[in-house]
Amino acid sequence: MIQPWKQKNDHIAYDCGFFQVHVQQSASPVTDKEHPFYVLHTWDWVNVIALTDDGKIPMVYQYRHGSKEFSLEIPGGAVDKKDGDALEAAQRELLEETGYEAREWHSLGKLKPNPAILNNTCHIYLALGAKKVSDLDLDEAEELEVRLHELPEVKQMMRKGGIQHALVIAAFELFDLFQESNPRLFKS
Amino acid sequence: MIQPWKQKNDHIAYDCGFFQVHVQQSASPVTDKEHPFYVLHTWDWVNVIALTDDGKIPMVYQYRHGSKEFSLEIPGGAVDKKDGDALEAAQRELLEETGYEAREWHSLGKLKPNPAILNNTCHIYLALGAKKVSDLDLDEAEELEVRLHELPEVKQMMRKGGIQHALVIAAFELFDLFQESNPRLFKS
Repeated sequence: MIQPWKQKNDHIAYDCGFFQVHVQQSASPVTDKEHPFYVLHTWDWVNVIALTDDGKIPMVYQYRHGSKEFSLEIPGGAVDKKDGDALEAAQRELLEETGYEAREWHSLGKLKPNPAILNNTCHIYLALGAKKVSDLDLDEAEELEVRLHELPEVKQMMRKGGIQHALVIAAFELFDLFQESNPRLFKS
Repeated sequence: MIQPWKQKNDHIAYDCGFFQVHVQQSASPVTDKEHPFYVLHTWDWVNVIALTDDGKIPMVYQYRHGSKEFSLEIPGGAVDKKDGDALEAAQRELLEETGYEAREWHSLGKLKPNPAILNNTCHIYLALGAKKVSDLDLDEAEELEVRLHELPEVKQMMRKGGIQHALVIAAFELFDLFQESNPRLFKS
């Protein structure tokens, strides 16, 4: 039976404010030999699939500085100190990034963005009965376009490479599974 | 129409050998004001959904140092200098981590693990006709168990939170889309 590694020490080697790089020396449960592991500590994240009553999904199109490309995504962001919990963060991010509110919220599950090198969790929500109620309220370094798409268009973009963000594609897999388990919510 | 940001400079603030933290000052195309962005540069990754002729998927169960939990995943890893391309890396990782080879390989697409803070791409492959041909060949800091699961079990674990790795769940969404587009490959 496979065992967890034993952490021997931990120090922060770099901190940019958004994440800290931890260097952790851990010992193998099999050989007892130590190896260094490099782990980013950061806030939890949230992502929201919102659905209007006429089947539109508000999505955000923005320039991403990691990939140096534009990326079509569902709204989301970091769980902030001012958020009571992940659901509140999801409601805030949906409103700030798209101007939408929703009638009914469901958890679609939790993702580990990368359990090998990140310590955080991304909480995925479904927001039904979404409706535009206000203008966007963006951070200074955020510039984005809201685009409405229907689910078959989203699937086609995932198939063709027009949507590549792993957290977004994983969120739609969780949505598929939720729909299968809750068919009555999606009767049209 | 939304525009890309203009990068003004770039320096490496931290390098652990597995990734480099780049600090990039970029100017908004709207306000021309500069902001710092923190981007991790690392190798491309590969992940493989392998399928035996009797419908089993070899998966790897291992301790992950980011989440400090065990994680059930599909085999994969980094594209190495010794790999000619991503497909070769996928074939190598499948063999090393599970001891399986496969008859027929298909690309399921490319994921951006996190286009906000990572510069890399994860290449997803489907390996049909997978067959155990050898023992595992693991790195010194790798300890894992190979577990065989059928697709309905995998879906159930994703639904219940037993599988949470975002890249793994995204890979199964790409697999669903591929199956819909290529039904003849999956006739039983």
